[in-house]
Amino acid sequence: MSNNCLVAQSGGPTPVINASLQGVIEAGIDNKNIDKVYGARFGIKGLMDDMIFDLTKEDKKEIKLLKNTPGSILGSCRYKLSSDEDIKKIFEKFNKYNIKYFFYIGGNDSMDTVDKLSKYAKKNNKDVVIMGIPKTIDNDLMVTDHSPGFGSAAKYIATSVIETTLDSRVYQRKNVHIIEVMGRHAGWLAAASALAGETGLNTPDLIYFPEITFSTDKFIKDLKEVAKTKDNIIVVISEGIKDENGEYISASDSSKHDQFGHKQMGGAAKALVPYIKEYVYDRVKVIEFNVLQRAANHIASKTDVDEAFRCGLKAVEYALLGDNTGSAVVIKRVSNNPYKSKIELAKVQDIANKESKLPKDYINKEGNHVTKKALDYLRPLISGQLESKSENGLPRYANLKAAVTLKPKNKIY
Amino acid sequence: MSNNCLVAQSGGPTPVINASLQGVIEAGIDNKNIDKVYGARFGIKGLMDDMIFDLTKEDKKEIKLLKNTPGSILGSCRYKLSSDEDIKKIFEKFNKYNIKYFFYIGGNDSMDTVDKLSKYAKKNNKDVVIMGIPKTIDNDLMVTDHSPGFGSAAKYIATSVIETTLDSRVYQRKNVHIIEVMGRHAGWLAAASALAGETGLNTPDLIYFPEITFSTDKFIKDLKEVAKTKDNIIVVISEGIKDENGEYISASDSSKHDQFGHKQMGGAAKALVPYIKEYVYDRVKVIEFNVLQRAANHIASKTDVDEAFRCGLKAVEYALLGDNTGSAVVIKRVSNNPYKSKIELAKVQDIANKESKLPKDYINKEGNHVTKKALDYLRPLISGQLESKSENGLPRYANLKAAVTLKPKNKIY
Repeated sequence: MSNNCLVAQSGGPTPVINASLQGVIEAGIDNKNIDKVYGARFGIKGLMDDMIFDLTKEDKKEIKLLKNTPGSILGSCRYKLSSDEDIKKIFEKFNKYNIKYFFYIGGNDSMDTVDKLSKYAKKNNKDVVIMGIPKTIDNDLMVTDHSPGFGSAAKYIATSVIETTLDSRVYQRKNVHIIEVMGRHAGWLAAASALAGETGLNTPDLIYFPEITFSTDKFIKDLKEVAKTKDNIIVVISEGIKDENGEYISASDSSKHDQFGHKQMGGAAKALVPYIKEYVYDRVKVIEFNVLQRAANHIASKTDVDEAFRCGLKAVEYALLGDNTGSAVVIKRVSNNPYKSKIELAKVQDIANKESKLPKDYINKEGNHVTKKALDYLRPLISGQLESKSENGLPRYANLKAAVTLKPKNKIY
Repeated sequence: MSNNCLVAQSGGPTPVINASLQGVIEAGIDNKNIDKVYGARFGIKGLMDDMIFDLTKEDKKEIKLLKNTPGSILGSCRYKLSSDEDIKKIFEKFNKYNIKYFFYIGGNDSMDTVDKLSKYAKKNNKDVVIMGIPKTIDNDLMVTDHSPGFGSAAKYIATSVIETTLDSRVYQRKNVHIIEVMGRHAGWLAAASALAGETGLNTPDLIYFPEITFSTDKFIKDLKEVAKTKDNIIVVISEGIKDENGEYISASDSSKHDQFGHKQMGGAAKALVPYIKEYVYDRVKVIEFNVLQRAANHIASKTDVDEAFRCGLKAVEYALLGDNTGSAVVIKRVSNNPYKSKIELAKVQDIANKESKLPKDYINKEGNHVTKKALDYLRPLISGQLESKSENGLPRYANLKAAVTLKPKNKIY
C-alpha cells in the first residue's frame, strides 16, 4: 500500500496561497516516505467528487512558479462540513486514494473542516494525518502572529494608498478620496493602510475599523477637523464598518433594487459620499481595491511569500514527525528588528471558527487611526519584494495542466 | 541677463510624467547655455500666480527619483488659454524671470496652450523658445506613435486583468467580472487589456470601445455566446462607451441624485450589471481601475519610463539647436522586433485639440475585441520593468521640498 499525500485549498484566495501549496508539493516530492502528492480541485467539494490529480506529474518548473501565481490554483470552495455523511464520504476517498497525509490550506472556516475531520479520524482510529495550513488576507486567525497572505495584501494597500495620495494632490482643488478595503469583521487591512504614512506623505488622514462603532456625525466631525489644514483628504474604511445598531453602513445602499428587481450592490464608501459632499468637500472619489488586494501577486511581500512557503514545507515535516492530526502550522514572531519568525504547531480547534480582531491598543483614542504599536507590528510584514518572473512585460504565473483541464469524473487525472 | 528655463506640467497625471520632468531638469542643469531651471506649480495657472521655484536647488538624489514618482509632482491644471490678457500675463512672467526656454508637459489641450503661446511669441518677436512634451495615459495624441504614460497604464491594466482572471476562476461557480478602464473618447486602454490574453490565459473575453456604438442587446448576445463555453467571463469596457444616440452608457446612472440632491456617480460598468444579472449570470463583480491606472508607478513599463525621460532630454536639446518654438517632441517607432524608437520634432498645431482614435483595423469585425495588428502595436510598449526604489517595503518617491511647501506668493522660492 502506498503512502500518498493530498493537498487542497479552501476559502478566499490570497496573493500567496499557492506559495504554501508549493511548499507542500516540494516537501512531499522530496520525501521518501511519501509516494504521490495529489491535489484536489475546489477543496473538499472536489475531493468528494473525485476531482483529484497527481501533482507529481506536473512540470517542476511550473511548480516553482507557484510563488508567483495569485488565485487558488487548485480551485477553492466555501463548504462547511455539516453531516456525518460528508465526513464518511471524505474518508472513503482518503481510503480510495491511499491518502496518509491531508493538508488543508484555508482560513477559520476551513480550520473547522480540519478540526471535524481530525476528531473523526481520532475517534475512529483512521490512519490519516490531517493538518491545517493557515491563509487569509484578513489576518483574523487566532494563535498565529499573522496569517500568510496578509502581508502581501497589506503591501498592495499601503502602496496603492501612496499612489492615490500623490494623484490626489495634483490639482489646486479640494477633494476627498475615500478608499474601501476588505475586512468584514476585522480592521487589519484598514490598519495596514497607515504604513503609507511612514514614507513622510502624511496619509491616510483617517481610518475606520469594524471594531469601532461607526457614527456618520463623528465621521463628518473628523473630516471637518482635517479639512482645517488639508485640501486633499484621504480616508480609508473597512468594508465592514457598522453603525450603533450593528447595521453595515453599506446596507443603506444594498437595500436598493435595479429595474429587474435584483439587489443593487453598494459599498460602505459609496454610502458615505453624499455626506462628504454635503458637509465637507464636494469633490469625492470612491476607490474600491476590490479583488486586486487579494490577487496582486505582482507586488507580493517577500516576507509573506517566504513564510507562506515555509508553512507548506513545515506542515509536511511535522506530519511525518508523528501524529499531528488536529494541528495547524502557525507563525511565531521571534524578533521585530531584525524581523525573524518561526513556524510552530498549534491546535486547530483553537483557530477554527474564531476571529482575531484588531487589539484595542492598536487603534487610537479617537477611533480613527492606528497607534505606534500597530505600526511596529505591521511594518516587517510588508518588507521585501518577491522577485518578479515576467515574459513580455507581464507576470509569468504557473500553468498546472491538470488544474486547468480537470473535469469532474471518477478517476485520477 | 540670464538664460533660464521653465518647465511645467498640465492635464491629468501619468505614472511617468515626472520622468519627462527629470529629463528636462537633468538636461537643463548640465547645459552651460542654461542658467537656472525653474518649475511652475499647477501649470500655467501657477505661473500666472508667480508660483515658481528653483529646481536647481533641489537635492540631486531626489531629482533622480522622479522616474519612480507618480502624480504630477509640480502640480497641474486644466486651464485653457482664452484671452489675450492671459497670454500677455504669461509673457510678463517669462520676462520677469528671464525665461528663455519654456517646456510644457501635457496632452492635447495643453498642446493648445503651447500652440497659442508659440504663435504669440512669433508674431511679437519674443525671445522665448516654447515647446511641448507629450503625456497622456489615453494615448490619444496625434503624430506621435504613442504617448508617454500609455505604456505604463497599459501594463497596469493587462497585469490587473491577469490577476483578476485568476481570481475569478477560483470557485466552481459562474460569474462575470466587468472591468472599467479609462478612455472617454478613445479605446486604447481598453485595447491594452487584450495583452493579458498573450499569457495563454484566454482573457479578456470581450472588450468594448468608445469607437464602436454600444448596444445592450448586442452586449448580451455576445455574453451569451461566451457563456456557452465559459463559466468565468471577463469583460473590459472603456468608461466612454456610448449608445446609438451618442449618450454615455454611464449616464443612465449619473442622472440619479442622492438624498441631498447631489448628482450620483455611476460608471458604465455599473450601469450594465442589471442586464448581465437578468440575462447571463447572476454573479457579477464590477472592478473600476480608477486613478490607480494612471498612478501605479510601482509597475511602470521600463520602455515607457525611458521614452518619457528621453522626451524631456531631447526637448531641451532641440530647444538649444535653434528656434523650435511651436514644436513638440514625439516618438517615432523605428522597428518592432527588436523594438526601437527615436524622439523627433513635430508641429504642435498638428497635435493640439486633436484626438487619435483606435484605428478600425485594430478592432475585430464583431466590434468586441482587438486584432493581431493591435497586439503587435501594443506589445513592445509594456515591456521591461522599472527598477523599483523602495524603503521598508514601500516605494521611495521623490521629495521636492519646494513642490510640497510652495505657497502662492510673489517670489521665487
